[in-house]
Amino acid sequence: MDDGGVTLTAQHQQPASGTDACHPPTPITLTPMPRSEAEERARTFKAVSDPTRVQILGMIEASPDGEACVCDLTTPLGLRQPTVSHHLKILTDAGLVTREKRGTWVWYAIVPERLDALRALLH
Amino acid sequence: MDDGGVTLTAQHQQPASGTDACHPPTPITLTPMPRSEAEERARTFKAVSDPTRVQILGMIEASPDGEACVCDLTTPLGLRQPTVSHHLKILTDAGLVTREKRGTWVWYAIVPERLDALRALLH
Repeated sequence: MDDGGVTLTAQHQQPASGTDACHPPTPITLTPMPRSEAEERARTFKAVSDPTRVQILGMIEASPDGEACVCDLTTPLGLRQPTVSHHLKILTDAGLVTREKRGTWVWYAIVPERLDALRALLH
Repeated sequence: MDDGGVTLTAQHQQPASGTDACHPPTPITLTPMPRSEAEERARTFKAVSDPTRVQILGMIEASPDGEACVCDLTTPLGLRQPTVSHHLKILTDAGLVTREKRGTWVWYAIVPERLDALRALLH
């Protein structure tokens, strides 16, 4: 069955026959959330769908005062500074960590309520 | 600076000079979580890092009794059944929805506490 012509906000229509036949008495009418909204949400989840970024979040949280510089992360991770900075930018853009420049160094800190939410999802 | 030889569980070592120089008085000693654990967590987040899967979760939750068949989802999403089934399998494997066969039809239901965690992460 090719549903290619149906828009994302279409109401539920008559089911096709065959393998796509739907349950009685009548199929449920469902409307998906707007694609743009779903894409924005997916972007947030994508920020933590990488194992290195999961490790970085854990390391920042475990650090004294809950904050760390990029230079604290490179050697334990075995990664170069540009790579770690790239991951930190993604986490910052997603609002999972905050970024503060103090003198020569940039410090990254956890946003606790968002980390709690991640943890709740995992258990 | 090439840190390629450092293992993931290495303790923090002396920082290199130049751009990777670390903040005084001494860099923080951090140890990342085991890579396998980080990969498992990242897999859970990856399950919801796709906009179609975000839409599917919302549709199942909004459905009567919080459950839906694959045939309820295909037309509103404009996708074919095998595609929707593939997404449902990923969500089921990640423990975000449950799957129950009743007679001819398979019903998918939300796991509420995990959806609450997703929502908390977004706000």
